[in-house]
Amino acid sequence: MKLPLSIDVGGTSIKVGLFDNNGKLLKKYSVPTIITKGNDDRNVINQIIDIIYKEKDENDILSVGIGMPGPVIDGVVLGAHNLHLNEINLQNIIKAEFSDLYIKVLNDANAACLGEAKFGSGFGYKNIVLITIGTGIGCGIMINNKIIEGKSGSTGEIGHICVEKDGLLCKCGKTGCLEKYASASAISNLATRRYNEYGKSVEKVTCEEVFKDYERGFNPAIQAVNEACYYLAIGIGNIINILNPDVIIIGGGVSEAKELLLEPIKFYLKEFTFYGTKETLVVTAKLHNDAALYGLSEIGND
Amino acid sequence: MKLPLSIDVGGTSIKVGLFDNNGKLLKKYSVPTIITKGNDDRNVINQIIDIIYKEKDENDILSVGIGMPGPVIDGVVLGAHNLHLNEINLQNIIKAEFSDLYIKVLNDANAACLGEAKFGSGFGYKNIVLITIGTGIGCGIMINNKIIEGKSGSTGEIGHICVEKDGLLCKCGKTGCLEKYASASAISNLATRRYNEYGKSVEKVTCEEVFKDYERGFNPAIQAVNEACYYLAIGIGNIINILNPDVIIIGGGVSEAKELLLEPIKFYLKEFTFYGTKETLVVTAKLHNDAALYGLSEIGND
Repeated sequence: MKLPLSIDVGGTSIKVGLFDNNGKLLKKYSVPTIITKGNDDRNVINQIIDIIYKEKDENDILSVGIGMPGPVIDGVVLGAHNLHLNEINLQNIIKAEFSDLYIKVLNDANAACLGEAKFGSGFGYKNIVLITIGTGIGCGIMINNKIIEGKSGSTGEIGHICVEKDGLLCKCGKTGCLEKYASASAISNLATRRYNEYGKSVEKVTCEEVFKDYERGFNPAIQAVNEACYYLAIGIGNIINILNPDVIIIGGGVSEAKELLLEPIKFYLKEFTFYGTKETLVVTAKLHNDAALYGLSEIGND
Repeated sequence: MKLPLSIDVGGTSIKVGLFDNNGKLLKKYSVPTIITKGNDDRNVINQIIDIIYKEKDENDILSVGIGMPGPVIDGVVLGAHNLHLNEINLQNIIKAEFSDLYIKVLNDANAACLGEAKFGSGFGYKNIVLITIGTGIGCGIMINNKIIEGKSGSTGEIGHICVEKDGLLCKCGKTGCLEKYASASAISNLATRRYNEYGKSVEKVTCEEVFKDYERGFNPAIQAVNEACYYLAIGIGNIINILNPDVIIIGGGVSEAKELLLEPIKFYLKEFTFYGTKETLVVTAKLHNDAALYGLSEIGND
């Protein structure tokens, strides 16, 4: 039986997953990403090729889905800056090496959205937005069962939609970006400020601690979570009003807080959705860090 | 030669257009919409049927595209409140009467987007957002050459995305909606306030007068236009960051101001778009009030 192989390339490690034809993850491992400073951008590509050769030796491979951390359109990586890859047709390069395999390259957030759509919280829906809240805020969008890549592979930059006019300065150069108010680091910074204002002297509260304190009713934690969720609701409300999706799936590290995160988001969301769009479901992701691997195993079926 | 017929149903009139097979508008007329108060929702449907019979008598009809003012999904009108039509499968009703014709029902903003895509400012692009700025702010979205309808036909409710936290109260019940800051009536209200503050006593300045005064450098008009365009740029920036489209087309009455409207929008938009999405074109519409008729003539080719 020929099997789908998934390779999810990140800035620090490359995750590899082998699946059966029913979407069951048979094995998973990761290797450190080799990045040479400068312009020798073949290192990561050679790593990908080596992984495929190795897996082909050991298994009967059907397809290879490759996830990349940056905008991708029709298999062309437009800019994976961490990996020193720019405007490179990775899909064609890999196809040239393995003409007997079905190959597809996707942006990693889009791959994760596909994974949640086929095997996770989006199962059975055709209009899905996956929002990952971690150090930054990422997003993958599926419309009518198809991942959308846009003009230049940059759909779903919701970490940088404006939720506060004349707001905080973001590293992207703009102000008021959602990422500055509701990413893991933003929640941590905000909570640290609120704890100290309250008189509890702390150097740094982690996002995990904030949600624990929120659960036990510690007021500065409640304030910080509510404030972040209010801004998330503005951003998510905008997406719902524009796309009218079936379901919003929230993933990434912060989503481990589950209902503690969902409840205030849903509460504030009522203020920001237009009546025709109020029925959109808001749920947390199921596949955690493996969502992209699952999605990449599906590339032969899209 | 069999010809496409377009019927664009509005709250006050029904516009009819007959096209040749090259998208040329051969004839156009309109009739008043007959709306009976109460639940007799067959009036408008009978009018549509009568129009089709009349045109069939006189011409060899190929297809009938019908535009409706409210959410439509797969030919089902979910709520055209002005017309007392709710959850009615208009497409099937018309198909049952004219089994020999190809029939399709679309939301009017989506039809207009299709029109601009095929015959107007969106020609040659596959990811298009049409924003119509009139009394309200409407929107049609095309992704990969397909109009998107969402879960419940309510895509593109950008008049109700939040652009000002704790902002002005909208008739929809939410606060800070784009429509309250940048529709024709919002611009008119804002300018009237600014003119009076400046010492020029006016009861009501029309949107057209505001742009004339803006062009000749009258300060309160400049303030009002810039303020509206700033909010439009927040809303359009959010759309661009989420959808990464090829082109944003601005239509509706306010778009007659052309460059006077586009220039400040583009100026402020730099503040609100993420780097990968900065290349999106922003242009005005070409087909004015006939965009939906043109789009509805294309339903056999989608």
